[in-house]
Amino acid sequence: MSDRPAIHDVRLTDLFRFEDERGAVLHHLRNDDPTFTGFGECYFSEIVSGAVKAWKRHQHQAQQLAVPVGRVRFVVYDDRDGSPSRGALDVVDLGRPDDYQRLLIPAGLWYGFRCLGDRSALIANCADVPHDPEDNEIVEPEDAPIPYAW
Amino acid sequence: MSDRPAIHDVRLTDLFRFEDERGAVLHHLRNDDPTFTGFGECYFSEIVSGAVKAWKRHQHQAQQLAVPVGRVRFVVYDDRDGSPSRGALDVVDLGRPDDYQRLLIPAGLWYGFRCLGDRSALIANCADVPHDPEDNEIVEPEDAPIPYAW
Repeated sequence: MSDRPAIHDVRLTDLFRFEDERGAVLHHLRNDDPTFTGFGECYFSEIVSGAVKAWKRHQHQAQQLAVPVGRVRFVVYDDRDGSPSRGALDVVDLGRPDDYQRLLIPAGLWYGFRCLGDRSALIANCADVPHDPEDNEIVEPEDAPIPYAW
Repeated sequence: MSDRPAIHDVRLTDLFRFEDERGAVLHHLRNDDPTFTGFGECYFSEIVSGAVKAWKRHQHQAQQLAVPVGRVRFVVYDDRDGSPSRGALDVVDLGRPDDYQRLLIPAGLWYGFRCLGDRSALIANCADVPHDPEDNEIVEPEDAPIPYAW
């Protein structure tokens, strides 16, 4: 577990990789992990080279993110009333081999991501509750009150 | 839901894909899906072009498999005592865009897979219980009593 994230309750956890000449085995999340709070849905978000998907915020859903393919920059911003880290911003790059980690983004935080490098990347998310359109807030980068330029 | 698999309790389910110029969103498994029986662990198995990983069998763990990257051939063999489909063998190819489906392999079946095509593929698995080395049987292809040549 890294202590890099500045935002309260954001967690970055080293994940096990087993390299094999036929292809690696890569862990993501187990139900006995200290950060596991439930399984709602697993889905994937592909992101093409240079593309940005931002900003998103969920009132109830927490994200458990890993990047098994390619390399992705995540930016997380804390605008939560009463948060001890309100105003903090984290930038976390994930990808193999050196940064194969799981990023936990709790509910209530703004986040977005950009594909780094020259090939598409794949993000896997084991969210703690299933996707609910009512819980899903999206703001275009130019309209967001977030001190970060993509 | 397809009725293609010949083996009792093997399930093949069409999955939602949302195409986007920045990269697709790809569903895998929700906790309210009719085939969901619990969340033990999510992990990924990468498989390089032409490689085979076979044969595996679990006494207790069921596999919920999707292929978000590349194309993979799965072979499943039913050698279960008392199964109504004992002796049956299923061959299922998964991959986008035409075969983006989830393959449920219940506990007790032999299975293996080969990467199809000229690039590495990624298999994601939302298994219903966490990995347990005691539950994990592996037999080399040449030693397995299975009527399939990789």
